[in-house]
Amino acid sequence: KRKGFPEVIYGEGKTAEQIQAIFSRLMTHHETVLATRISKEKAEQLVPQLVHVTYDECSRTLLYDERKSFRSYGKVGVLCAGTSDLPVAEEAAITAQAMGLEIARFYDIGVAGIHRLFDQLEQIRTCDVLIVVAGMEGALVSVVGGLVQQPILAVPTSIGYGASFHGVAALLTMLNSCASGVSVVNIDNGFGAAYQAALISRIKKE
Amino acid sequence: KRKGFPEVIYGEGKTAEQIQAIFSRLMTHHETVLATRISKEKAEQLVPQLVHVTYDECSRTLLYDERKSFRSYGKVGVLCAGTSDLPVAEEAAITAQAMGLEIARFYDIGVAGIHRLFDQLEQIRTCDVLIVVAGMEGALVSVVGGLVQQPILAVPTSIGYGASFHGVAALLTMLNSCASGVSVVNIDNGFGAAYQAALISRIKKE
Amino acid sequence: KRKGFPEVIYGEGKTAEQIQAIFSRLMTHHETVLATRISKEKAEQLVPQLVHVTYDECSRTLLYDERKSFRSYGKVGVLCAGTSDLPVAEEAAITAQAMGLEIARFYDIGVAGIHRLFDQLEQIRTCDVLIVVAGMEGALVSVVGGLVQQPILAVPTSIGYGASFHGVAALLTMLNSCASGVSVVNIDNGFGAAYQAALISRIKKE
Amino acid sequence: KRKGFPEVIYGEGKTAEQIQAIFSRLMTHHETVLATRISKEKAEQLVPQLVHVTYDECSRTLLYDERKSFRSYGKVGVLCAGTSDLPVAEEAAITAQAMGLEIARFYDIGVAGIHRLFDQLEQIRTCDVLIVVAGMEGALVSVVGGLVQQPILAVPTSIGYGASFHGVAALLTMLNSCASGVSVVNIDNGFGAAYQAALISRIKKE
Amino acid sequence: KRKGFPEVIYGEGKTAEQIQAIFSRLMTHHETVLATRISKEKAEQLVPQLVHVTYDECSRTLLYDERKSFRSYGKVGVLCAGTSDLPVAEEAAITAQAMGLEIARFYDIGVAGIHRLFDQLEQIRTCDVLIVVAGMEGALVSVVGGLVQQPILAVPTSIGYGASFHGVAALLTMLNSCASGVSVVNIDNGFGAAYQAALISRIKKE
Amino acid sequence: KRKGFPEVIYGEGKTAEQIQAIFSRLMTHHETVLATRISKEKAEQLVPQLVHVTYDECSRTLLYDERKSFRSYGKVGVLCAGTSDLPVAEEAAITAQAMGLEIARFYDIGVAGIHRLFDQLEQIRTCDVLIVVAGMEGALVSVVGGLVQQPILAVPTSIGYGASFHGVAALLTMLNSCASGVSVVNIDNGFGAAYQAALISRIKKE
Amino acid sequence: KRKGFPEVIYGEGKTAEQIQAIFSRLMTHHETVLATRISKEKAEQLVPQLVHVTYDECSRTLLYDERKSFRSYGKVGVLCAGTSDLPVAEEAAITAQAMGLEIARFYDIGVAGIHRLFDQLEQIRTCDVLIVVAGMEGALVSVVGGLVQQPILAVPTSIGYGASFHGVAALLTMLNSCASGVSVVNIDNGFGAAYQAALISRIKKE
Amino acid sequence: KRKGFPEVIYGEGKTAEQIQAIFSRLMTHHETVLATRISKEKAEQLVPQLVHVTYDECSRTLLYDERKSFRSYGKVGVLCAGTSDLPVAEEAAITAQAMGLEIARFYDIGVAGIHRLFDQLEQIRTCDVLIVVAGMEGALVSVVGGLVQQPILAVPTSIGYGASFHGVAALLTMLNSCASGVSVVNIDNGFGAAYQAALISRIKKE
Ligand SMILES: Nc1ncnc2c1ncn2[C@@H]1O[C@H](COP(=O)(O)O)[C@@H](O)[C@H]1O
Ligand SMILES: Nc1ncnc2c1ncn2[C@@H]1O[C@H](COP(=O)(O)O)[C@@H](O)[C@H]1O
Ligand SMILES: Nc1ncnc2c1ncn2[C@@H]1O[C@H](COP(=O)(O)O)[C@@H](O)[C@H]1O
Ligand SMILES: Nc1ncnc2c1ncn2[C@@H]1O[C@H](COP(=O)(O)O)[C@@H](O)[C@H]1O
Ligand SMILES: [Mg+2]
Ligand SMILES: [Mg+2]
Ligand SMILES: [Mg+2]
Ligand SMILES: [Mg+2]
Ligand SMILES: [Mg+2]
Ligand SMILES: [Mg+2]
Ligand SMILES: [Mg+2]
Ligand SMILES: [Mg+2]
Repeated sequence: KRKGFPEVIYGEGKTAEQIQAIFSRLMTHHETVLATRISKEKAEQLVPQLVHVTYDECSRTLLYDERKSFRSYGKVGVLCAGTSDLPVAEEAAITAQAMGLEIARFYDIGVAGIHRLFDQLEQIRTCDVLIVVAGMEGALVSVVGGLVQQPILAVPTSIGYGASFHGVAALLTMLNSCASGVSVVNIDNGFGAAYQAALISRIKKE
Repeated sequence: KRKGFPEVIYGEGKTAEQIQAIFSRLMTHHETVLATRISKEKAEQLVPQLVHVTYDECSRTLLYDERKSFRSYGKVGVLCAGTSDLPVAEEAAITAQAMGLEIARFYDIGVAGIHRLFDQLEQIRTCDVLIVVAGMEGALVSVVGGLVQQPILAVPTSIGYGASFHGVAALLTMLNSCASGVSVVNIDNGFGAAYQAALISRIKKE
Repeated sequence: KRKGFPEVIYGEGKTAEQIQAIFSRLMTHHETVLATRISKEKAEQLVPQLVHVTYDECSRTLLYDERKSFRSYGKVGVLCAGTSDLPVAEEAAITAQAMGLEIARFYDIGVAGIHRLFDQLEQIRTCDVLIVVAGMEGALVSVVGGLVQQPILAVPTSIGYGASFHGVAALLTMLNSCASGVSVVNIDNGFGAAYQAALISRIKKE
Repeated sequence: KRKGFPEVIYGEGKTAEQIQAIFSRLMTHHETVLATRISKEKAEQLVPQLVHVTYDECSRTLLYDERKSFRSYGKVGVLCAGTSDLPVAEEAAITAQAMGLEIARFYDIGVAGIHRLFDQLEQIRTCDVLIVVAGMEGALVSVVGGLVQQPILAVPTSIGYGASFHGVAALLTMLNSCASGVSVVNIDNGFGAAYQAALISRIKKE
Repeated sequence: KRKGFPEVIYGEGKTAEQIQAIFSRLMTHHETVLATRISKEKAEQLVPQLVHVTYDECSRTLLYDERKSFRSYGKVGVLCAGTSDLPVAEEAAITAQAMGLEIARFYDIGVAGIHRLFDQLEQIRTCDVLIVVAGMEGALVSVVGGLVQQPILAVPTSIGYGASFHGVAALLTMLNSCASGVSVVNIDNGFGAAYQAALISRIKKE
Repeated sequence: KRKGFPEVIYGEGKTAEQIQAIFSRLMTHHETVLATRISKEKAEQLVPQLVHVTYDECSRTLLYDERKSFRSYGKVGVLCAGTSDLPVAEEAAITAQAMGLEIARFYDIGVAGIHRLFDQLEQIRTCDVLIVVAGMEGALVSVVGGLVQQPILAVPTSIGYGASFHGVAALLTMLNSCASGVSVVNIDNGFGAAYQAALISRIKKE
Repeated sequence: KRKGFPEVIYGEGKTAEQIQAIFSRLMTHHETVLATRISKEKAEQLVPQLVHVTYDECSRTLLYDERKSFRSYGKVGVLCAGTSDLPVAEEAAITAQAMGLEIARFYDIGVAGIHRLFDQLEQIRTCDVLIVVAGMEGALVSVVGGLVQQPILAVPTSIGYGASFHGVAALLTMLNSCASGVSVVNIDNGFGAAYQAALISRIKKE
Repeated sequence: KRKGFPEVIYGEGKTAEQIQAIFSRLMTHHETVLATRISKEKAEQLVPQLVHVTYDECSRTLLYDERKSFRSYGKVGVLCAGTSDLPVAEEAAITAQAMGLEIARFYDIGVAGIHRLFDQLEQIRTCDVLIVVAGMEGALVSVVGGLVQQPILAVPTSIGYGASFHGVAALLTMLNSCASGVSVVNIDNGFGAAYQAALISRIKKE
């Protein structure tokens, strides 16, 4: 495990009891502990038991963060088109933050209203790495990729219906993106994109 | 069949002999006859036999067009990103023309170089209907759809490799487009898009 | 956004609170506001809060419509085979109406009882555009397409079981339709078909 | 094997030598021997070697038929929409004939020109069983099924392009047919449909 | 509709109220009315309202049958391997019976215990048509098909897990059966197989 | 690598030159060298260059085997239904032999003629392990599995057409087999089944 | 059924009543009875009714085991990467044990922490057969296969999200494993792997 | 386009004439021009026409590189398991080099012989970014990912047969990798991985 990286627990398929046991054990040795995919129900059991822990309902993360100082390893921009992609975008943002990155959120950047993307381009270009989260047809990745020179980590989301096939349409769009400088993680894997962004950002500091 | 619409022969899976027989029979009664999906080999057999007929290698169409006057039923814009999509774009363009539409070609309009799209936007907006042809990830449809108010007929193409799955990725992108005002035809079906464009354009004149 | 088009909210994945906030904000500036994919539960929360709003259970739409005058931009026919396709057909119909189209409903037009289609053909041909909604095998589109000269917007529905694969069978049928003049929208996307019908109809008036 | 049924050799993946060996051995003991899926190249080798044998290029069948008397076990109608489905339709027709059925061919019966179907309906209804062969979207099966009371054996064909997926679209259409009285065989399996038709027809005579 | 055939209502996606309305209307004009896909909950509402109606929980059918005399049009054998396939097998059996067929049930005929199939072969061969219902890998169809000369209607079921893909594995097995004389209906479509069996059996009596 | 196991070269995608180089190097140190997936063309180049090497056209293997003594580690039965599966069955047989197993071939054991299976059952039961090779619908595996108590290694083959999907139908059948004691290798992977059979047989001798 | 093998009931899709009836009947004649896929709810009904029976919540098995003596037929190693795969791994372990195998569990052997695998390699190599259970990407199978000479039975699990497609990704990985000596069972089929392991182990003792 | 990045031509689907025209035009203005996916046949036409250009048969690239000085922007490791993955690995390597990266090749690093990976680990860890190329089951990515802290760009290749589905199996494995710090590009897209590696490496220098 990389120095300065938090311990991370994947909450899906674990009971609240299992999570609590792992979480409190890790808290005794680490400054930062993160659990992802924590449902509201489990959080309600866990938060009273684990002191100094914050639950974020949107991203479904549970974070213990007692870092004395915050040394930024870089700045990651998280882009998405709107409310339905927020849980995945926020999973990425919270994870990236726990891994020592500064976060810039661009959450109203959809292909349907492309001028909003242009309005923010200056800001977007100040980031080291970009995480682009998109469901339905995932075209946002290609558009952003054509406009910037940052490496893009693309995250398809499972939102949509019919022929979106739970994220497969967006995944394929991203894998086939005509823009260079795009690599892709699993459907809904905000965590994975953030982790990769953190590894990338570290290169520059070491 | 609509008044003023050409007779159309689908050449795939027919021998040159079969096509010649049908074509010459139709030529005796109609001003315009179109054959699509004609390979270069078949064309070399057919052109010497069928007088007043033009073969277009790119679109793989064979056209007999003896219309005395050209009454335009509307103007269709055909958009694509570059050389690989040309055969499908041209199948659409030639078909639309044979059906009495004016054609405006926008063939360098890719998501990767989005400024070229903006440069042409004024021109694109003068069309009644748009045909957007795109392979790989098909994002062009959503971008154009977000910028214009014309109905868009989206044509996925089978170009690409790997996870493009012979046009399936582009097809899914288009079906899931976040832009409203998009409907889709079969992979590589330039003809179908043009026919639909012609039907749509006729509404206004009748 | 087109002049005279309503604002539309996509209700799926938004809480009743979120929908209410957006809806009431839009009501202050617009004559017509439409929300689609509103479950009965959410509607029960929303209707008492939003005055002058009508919920339609079948189409799952919430409509605020204070247009002073109704100027028809055209007439759209909505066709389907029976009860199971009604929610999608009605999403199309209500949306089209909110967008300034006259609606003619043909809701008992199945391939299994083809004479009913013939009985209504005269009426169907008075429309400018047709929306054909069909699940299971989607053959209705090809049959209607062979009989009329209107552009057809085909909407596959997710009803059926087994090898219908939640609408994929109907989607493929429609994309492969042997009838010309058919373009397709996403599975269950009645809204999208109606929007496209409205764009098409506007051509004629402008 | 049923009394009166021919021996059948499946030619695909067998060399001309292998086919000749099996064929001539069977000819010594049987009045009727049929080989299917015989390419033109193999036929050119085989026909000179096997006396009293007829090759049919369209259906790609090789038939030895020395029946003294022809006792008809029933009448099967074979329906399809046109030239591209002929090889499969003819594989069905030739096989059925070799199995002792009378054949009525209806080869211009497409959904796109539905009046031709109505013109022939009287004749179609004189058959005991129907084999309906269709590619692309396969809608013909549902239309015929809604009009007649014969059992229908549906054969999807692999013709088409793009989202026809080599017959899968037609296969799904047929499996999901809203018409009752339809059962389906493998893509391009004209032989299988004819064999089943022969079994069905025998019931009545025994 | 064929003389002597019952009216059939497809219950899926209809409310108890809708079913009751259709059912009682049909009861006033027909001797036999059948509804399929009726959940236990709906049946509990319906049975008290509809006199002379029988609900069968296993097949999920509701039957009204006041035929004065029972004229058998033939005998259909229904075969399956065990408990999990019973709902589909019984949907077929009850439907076939309502359509005037005699039923012979063979419900312990699995490939895993093939001797039980051999024990019953004599009985199976007395039927006119066979309906073979099978889930998981669907091999039963090929085994039975190799042993008998009756036409087989194969019904894949959606039981199983993992790579059974809700009936797709069984469906493919059946479509590819090496045994001749097999045609296939949709996954879980016991009704469709019975209807086809009834049409087939009628041939012989007419 | 296990003691007594041959070196194996996978020939696909290697040039004749590359194969020759590897093969002759291995021959200097090993008693047995096997190359699989060697086309006839490559073999014609290779055989004259590599002394003491045997090419088998059916299995497409090239074998160098200078073992002084043959110690049998067990007996494997290889079963298939007929000519089309032979290349895969023989790849398995030749590989198994090179790995020190005795081979019993049962190559006419199809579900369509099940009595031939019963005739050989006594012999089949003398084997330690069985390799069952089957294409199309793959039902043979379940039938054999229900009759014997040997572990079965199932090999789907890519033969067939239409809905056999190049071996996927057979693969799914085998993964879903109702018979216990079946495990599966990749489509056409006769080599893999033989290798696994050899590992299994070794257990008993060690 | 093999001598010394338990009777096994597949609990999925059977009611508690059905299971109890079968289970108690088998208990009167057999020393060992196993039921798999028993939910906690059903177990709560069953355990009080069936004396001497043990329910294991993790593996969802119900076991009656009154064997007087335990004769080990071999030793199977069960390997997996962690908590999410435990239910399938334990289904395999409990089944194997009921079938007379010794079990060695290696439950923290993930590709992500490969040193733990190396630490246990000595122990793993003492087994006769290995069952490797893995979800997500299933890479564990190839890694273990490259390090040991035991036959490996690979079990993909349905855990994961997005592009794991309920176990399909792991299934494909395992079928394509570059390591020789791997054969695969259905997704989540711990039972099937254990049964195969028992058959394999018996070879050596007989 | 990034400063110092070469112009790149995608050769697939372009004629030699088209490529030559674009290539020579670019050569007049740029120090480095790269064309990928150039078949040997096209190269034989092109090389004599374009001076100072090198064709590499394995990677199928054509490179013009007249950079005066080579400033390294970082070091990328390219890993694969052997000969069949070389074309994709070399497309990545040549591209990366043209983009100003130092290349370290690790081309015998397969999961089947894991010790070779361990032998090179020290060297691998000296790289800034890793490109891991793998076909068949793609497990290499997870293994490497568990051992190093560099960001990994995973490239699935289309080699393999049967259930490898032309690279889909490897693609899914990589998307589901249990190792963090992995992002994926399209099947066979060595170019895309290299471009992304170059963008990532630039961060550190700017
Ligand atoms: N049923 C629907 N299906 C697809 N798109 C819809 C639907 N209803 C509304 N939309 C689109 O969703 C947009 C609003 O999305 P949102 O801002 O998320 O509420 C509208 O402008 C429409 O373009
Ligand atoms: N076109 C066909 N498609 C499917 N099965 C066929 C076809 N032609 C023949 N068959 C079957 O193949 C058997 C002969 O197979 P074989 O012994 O391999 O020549 C016949 O008895 C038929 O059952
Ligand atoms: N279980 C079933 N599966 C498929 N089709 C059915 C089923 N039950 C009834 N049907 C068909 O559905 C028709 C009635 O549909 P509906 O008018 O929607 O009730 C009947 O005439 C049958 O053709
Ligand atoms: N037909 C085959 N299918 C799958 N794997 C094979 C086959 N033949 C050989 N192999 C494997 O490929 C390895 C050799 O690969 P290579 O070094 O590329 O020649 C052998 O050790 C076997 O494990
Ligand atoms: Mg870019
Ligand atoms: Mg628009
Ligand atoms: Mg029409
Ligand atoms: Mg009918
Ligand atoms: Mg039979
Ligand atoms: Mg067995
Ligand atoms: Mg091994
Ligand atoms: Mg790592």
